[in-house]
Order: sequence, then C-alpha cells, then structure tokens
Amino acid sequence: MLRVLLTLALGEALRAPGALRARPARRAAAPVSMMAGGAKKILVLGGDGFCGWPTAVHLSDKGHAVTIVDNLSRRDIDTELGCDSLTPIAHPEVRIAAWKELTGKTIDFVNLDVAKEYDRLESLIKDKRPDSIVHFAEQRAAPYSQKGTKQKRYTVDNNVCGTHNLLTAVVEADCCAHIVHLGTMGVYGYGTSGGEIPEGYIDVVLPGGRDSRILHPAYPGSVYHTTKCLDALLFQFYAKNDGVRVTDLHQGIVWGTNTDLTSMDPRLTNRFDYDGDYGTVLNRFLMQAALNVPMTVYGTGGQTRAFIHISDTCKCIEIAINNPPAEGAQPEIFNQVAETRRVRDIAELISKNTGVEARFLANPRQEAAENELDVSNRKFRALGFEPTKLNDALFEEVQDVTQKYKDRCIPTKILPASFWNKKRAQEVAADKEARGAVDSAAAAGVGR
Amino acid sequence: MLRVLLTLALGEALRAPGALRARPARRAAAPVSMMAGGAKKILVLGGDGFCGWPTAVHLSDKGHAVTIVDNLSRRDIDTELGCDSLTPIAHPEVRIAAWKELTGKTIDFVNLDVAKEYDRLESLIKDKRPDSIVHFAEQRAAPYSQKGTKQKRYTVDNNVCGTHNLLTAVVEADCCAHIVHLGTMGVYGYGTSGGEIPEGYIDVVLPGGRDSRILHPAYPGSVYHTTKCLDALLFQFYAKNDGVRVTDLHQGIVWGTNTDLTSMDPRLTNRFDYDGDYGTVLNRFLMQAALNVPMTVYGTGGQTRAFIHISDTCKCIEIAINNPPAEGAQPEIFNQVAETRRVRDIAELISKNTGVEARFLANPRQEAAENELDVSNRKFRALGFEPTKLNDALFEEVQDVTQKYKDRCIPTKILPASFWNKKRAQEVAADKEARGAVDSAAAAGVGR
Repeated sequence: MLRVLLTLALGEALRAPGALRARPARRAAAPVSMMAGGAKKILVLGGDGFCGWPTAVHLSDKGHAVTIVDNLSRRDIDTELGCDSLTPIAHPEVRIAAWKELTGKTIDFVNLDVAKEYDRLESLIKDKRPDSIVHFAEQRAAPYSQKGTKQKRYTVDNNVCGTHNLLTAVVEADCCAHIVHLGTMGVYGYGTSGGEIPEGYIDVVLPGGRDSRILHPAYPGSVYHTTKCLDALLFQFYAKNDGVRVTDLHQGIVWGTNTDLTSMDPRLTNRFDYDGDYGTVLNRFLMQAALNVPMTVYGTGGQTRAFIHISDTCKCIEIAINNPPAEGAQPEIFNQVAETRRVRDIAELISKNTGVEARFLANPRQEAAENELDVSNRKFRALGFEPTKLNDALFEEVQDVTQKYKDRCIPTKILPASFWNKKRAQEVAADKEARGAVDSAAAAGVGR
Repeated sequence: MLRVLLTLALGEALRAPGALRARPARRAAAPVSMMAGGAKKILVLGGDGFCGWPTAVHLSDKGHAVTIVDNLSRRDIDTELGCDSLTPIAHPEVRIAAWKELTGKTIDFVNLDVAKEYDRLESLIKDKRPDSIVHFAEQRAAPYSQKGTKQKRYTVDNNVCGTHNLLTAVVEADCCAHIVHLGTMGVYGYGTSGGEIPEGYIDVVLPGGRDSRILHPAYPGSVYHTTKCLDALLFQFYAKNDGVRVTDLHQGIVWGTNTDLTSMDPRLTNRFDYDGDYGTVLNRFLMQAALNVPMTVYGTGGQTRAFIHISDTCKCIEIAINNPPAEGAQPEIFNQVAETRRVRDIAELISKNTGVEARFLANPRQEAAENELDVSNRKFRALGFEPTKLNDALFEEVQDVTQKYKDRCIPTKILPASFWNKKRAQEVAADKEARGAVDSAAAAGVGR
C-alpha cells in the first residue's frame, strides 16, 4: 500500500495546467522591516547608472530608505571605449553628499560586484533586510554585447550570474524582499505575438485544443537581450520553487537625461550617452542635431520600437515597488513603455524641429528591416501611470544638454562600432567605402 | 512516412512567424576537416563523465578522431560529497592508454575547464577545427544543484557560462562545427503540452487565430534543469545570429553502467553513482536491492519519467552527429528516450526480480506527486534508433556490478541529501523522526 505523505499539501495548489503549483515553504513571516508611513528599505542594484541614479533619488525623495549597490562598472566601460558621459557626472560619494545637503535625505552607497562578490551580497541582504530590491545591475547595451568575444562573455557572465546570485542570496537570507527587475521589450521579438504584445504571458491553444497561458516565447535580438530572457526563466523557477516575489519590467528605449530631481544641482546630473554602443537612438539623434551633422539611421529606419522617458522610468519603478505580486505567485510582468514609433519617423520629427537631415547607413544589427509593433501597457496605466509622449518640450531638455556640452563630444564615437555578425560588419564597411569619407568629414566638422 | 516526417523536420528550417529570418553571414565554407570514409574530428566536452566516457569510446570505435576535453570536476565532486563511483575508475590517461592497447585507436585528452578557460578553449577549437563538438561539460545532477548556495551557483555559473563560451568560441574560430548538446526531458515540465510531448517545438494557436510553431515552453523543476532551458535559448540566438549548427538532445534518466566497449577491460570501466545526489533512480534502486535494504521511493512514486539505457545514449549521439541540421536552420531537437515508466512501477519491477521491498519517503523534491507522460521520439526512430527497453537481461548487468562492488558502497549515502526548499527539508526530517531510526538501521546492515 502506498504511503501518500504530501498529497494534501500538493493537490490543492495545482493551478496552471500541469505545471507545478505546490506552494513552496513560506519564507520570513512578514515584512517586519516595513517603515512607518509605507516607506520601505530599498536596495538599488546598479544605482549609479543611467536609469539607476535617477531612480535612486526618486525613491529617496518619496521617503524610502535607499541603498545604492554598484561596482561602477559603467564608468570602467567608458574608459574601455575611450568615451565618456556627455554630461560631467560626479562620483557617487559626491552625489549622495549633495543630495543630503540639498534635501536632508540619506542615500547609502555600497561598492559591490553583484556577479562576483556573492558572500558580501548575501551579508548585505541579511544585514539590511530590504523590502524591495531594484535590479539594474546588468550590462545594458545591445551593441556592446555584440562587440566581440570579451563583451559577449562579460554580458552573459555578469547579467545571468548576477541575477542568479541575487535570487540565491534572497532565498539563503530568508528574506521576503520583492525583486523589481529591469527587463526589455526586446525579449518579445517584433511582430511574433499575433497582434498586440501582451504583458509577459500569452494565451495560446495547445495541440488538442486546450487553452494555456504561457510565458511569451523569447525572441531576443542580441546577446544582451538574450540575457534578459535567461533572467526571466530564473525568475520563473525561483518564484515556483522558493516563493520569491519578482516583478519583471520589460522596458522600451529610454530617452531624456535629467529628471526634475537630478536637475536640482550639477552634482546630481545624470549621465548622457551618445556613442554608438551606449547611446540610445533618440538621444543619439539629438546629439547629432546639436552638432549639426546628419542623423545616422540604420537600414531603412523602418524598425518600430517602444519608447519611454527617463522620468517615467522612475515613476514606473515606484508603482512596481508599491504593487508586489502575492507570495507564491508567478512573476508579475509589466511593459514599461509610453508609446511606439518608427525610427525614421523619430528622425523626421527631430529633422522638422532642428533642420538637420537623416542619412541612412547599412544596418550593423541583425534585425528585420521593417516591423509593426503594438504593445500593451494596460497594467501600469491601470495603476495610474500617465505616459509622457515624445514632444518638443522634452526634446528641449536634451537639446539644452547637448548644446551645453557639445564640446565634450567625440563625434566619431556616434557612428556604429559594434556589428551583430561578420556579414553585417562587411555590409557597413562596403557602405562606408561607397560613400567615401563623407560621414567622417561631416562628423569631424564640430567638436574635437 | 517516417522518412517524410524526418525530411520535414530537418528541411523546413525557419518557420516561426515574424521571427528574424535574415540569413546570417556564412561561416567557414565547407567542412574541410572531414576525414576519409565519413570519419570526423570530434571533441567530447565532459568526456570523463558517466555518459561522456562511453560515448567517447563508442565514437572512437566507429573510426572518428576523438578528443576528450574535461577538467575532471565530477571526480572533485566525489571528494566534496565524501562518496565515490561504486566501480573503481581509472584516470583518463590510463583509460585512453588501455583503449589504445586493446584497439590500436587513439583518443586524445585535454584537461580544460570550458566555463573558465575561455582562451584555451578558443585555441583548441582553432587548432583542431572539429567537425562535431559533443557537449556534456555541465553539472548534471538535479539534487546536487539544489543542495545549497554553493552548488546552485556552481551549476548556473558552470553550465550557462560554459555553454556560452563554447558558442562564442565556435563563432570566433570561424569554425563550422556542429554542436551536439545534452539537454534533458525535464525542460518540458510534466503534462504541460496538451498531450504527447513533441520534439523541441510545439504548434500553438496565437491570439487572433494565427498558427505558430514555438520552442516548447520551459517548465524546469530544479536549478540544473533551468540551466538546460537557458542553454536552449542561447542555442536559438546563436543559430539565428551566427548560423551555428546545434542539435539539442533532451535525454531521459540514464540507467545501466557499462557498454560492450567499456566492459572490455577493467581499466575502461564506467563510473556508477548510487548516492542520493548523483545516483539515477533505477541504478539507486538496484544498489539497494544488492544491499538487501528497502528501495527508497520519493513521495507516492507516481512520478512518470522517461528512461534510456547508457548504450542507447551512445548510439543516439552517433546518430545526431551523422545528421546535423542545415546551416542557418533553427536548432534541431530530439527526445533521447526509450520509454516512460512510473517510479513506483520500476520499484515493483525490481521488487519482483529481487524480493526487495519499496519504502515510501517524504519527497525531498518540489514536484507534482503524480503525472502522466507521453513523449515523442519519432525523429530518432526514423533515423534507425531501436530503443532498449527495461528488461531483466540489462538489470543483470547492473546487478552484477552492484553485487561485485557492494563492499565499496556507503549505504547512508543512498538516502536523499539535498532538498528543493525548506518546506521539503522539514517534511523529510519529520518523516524520518516519525519512523525512528528504521532507515539508518536498515541501511547500516551491510557495507561499511
């Protein structure tokens, strides 16, 4: 006769068809560290970066107790690439001292490599017992992730092992922190969903006619995007097996520089990347416009992409922190986007605004030349998110920045410097040869 | 009919609607290193392990030029666990010298850590220019991968970074080697497909009614299984972006010890794991039967799993090597299984054969108590694979091994030593307490 030891505990929890739905061991009982007035203890991993820094000050401004955890790797990559933020940025210690001086609020800073210093990470989580951990601590540029062997390997080793270290440490510390992770719209592919891209999960009909809700299939377009798909599977497993609460935010392309808070003082200024590896498309175009050289559009410019302003990034992360999934639930997934636009339409918008023309280059990326893109952001909107759309007013902020600091720009760095594969590298080289030295001459016209 | 199915499976490569389908740069023109008579240059990464070693000699026996690449990590884990292969196994240098002495055939051996020694791996691939690379170089035990923080992290770091290093090195070396990777049936989950588990890809209907063939959704049940799902996404990306040819073999639970070839000489003997971490269920039961102690079944034993004999593993890998996907095609995926059985039915089969009884323990694993499992292995069968089914004749081989070496067994090591989460650990502890010292007394009856 069989001894059935676990069936009661297991049976009732089976929900999604066939998948394991047993409720895992409950971890630390209650969010004991919850501060008065809904304020939380929050770690911001990668809090020195382009999105991380404005988010850290935004959360501090809202009264949360923020600790930035960062190994300053993004600054090291500037050194590697022979490039720098267009805006002069202060060291984290100067930034948080200025923030304290201006607002009386404290932000802590811990210099720590999440992917390599596991023991220190675990100790930090055990000591701080955070309510929320915002996870930006990943190499975030698709072109950089395709640059060469070293950069491909760094992106995978850093991003995947870092995310996994975080999950392991949260379980080991018996900490019920809610992890808020920055994913990317690029996990979905473009035009593969059969219509509007849903938020994370998609309803399909399986062979035999059974309905099923599955994680949206992964169609990453670079090593970087692939790491975000790998992260997503790690989240699924640790939510199921250990009850870790995760929100994954599939973000569009971020544009803009400063928020109201980072504009308060030059010591709080956010970084601005304009180079071919780290500069996002809209910011890169505005940089070229400031230099009065043609905007370089890849391929036909028919790629439709999702966009979000840096101020909205901060607001969305705050909303995500305030709305954690229930313990034992699947990871919550939001699409963190304001709107979608074709790349060439953005170039045209800026062209109208500035008089600078677009130039079409052979595409360094392995991607479809043209695509439609329809994205749901219903969940964030239902929680009160009012997206900032592309408009002239916000262009002005970036235009001010690029005008003010254009002498710090190295114009040749704006051109593509990473190629998805050998064929794409050859095509760009052939295209360059066909044009002669036009681009470099144009680029050399201003700046150093 | 079967031939037709096969042609469809292999020929019709790029189907997923809307996914990027631009043909990537053609890599090295032709398999110039193809040896006379269809013999190939083959690297066997992880060629010192339980599946790797019999596969290496099998491929050498067929006339291929085999190089084993292994850092002997499995032997180090024996040291860590205070356990050892039941069968005494020789060092790789002794093994390949014996193989040479007996057959006149040469197997090379390179001691190299695929996950950590990237530069040496790239150089090796550039030097050898292999036609095929069989990739077993991963931590392969689910219980070990759940044992603790160190083992979870090692499994992810080693498996994912190792697989990615291999892909990067193949691209960088401009090598057209076909990668044959050992996946696991565990990537599919159990009972989530809506019927028979297809081979890798599944036909679904998307919202709006559009048909789509997608990679089967990932439902891994351990950190180990999760790494195989991550590998699968890396293969998808590198096939799409760089034209790397990959075959992923989703293997069932392997049982048996020696093949005809490793039985030729004691110096060629394959390893046999009986412990709770590395011993596979059927081998573990046969070990207990040899010791005349009850077989320890986890939970109800109602878990249905797929099985394959070690000799069939070797044959399937040979078939996969001989049937690479076309360049530019999606990864080829085969289910490398002979049959499916319920765990308690296997215990009953062995019980009938040996008179030893089953004992049901609280399940250390976070998994469904009972599941059905129907698996397609049509592709391998169409290519001539005739599966070896569980039968008494093959049980005898394992029974001979366990009887011969039972004095080397540490019986307490057979019991579960890794727990999927704290709840499962507590349940097993409570179950043990309820029984008193019965298990350990029974286990202590024989061996040291």
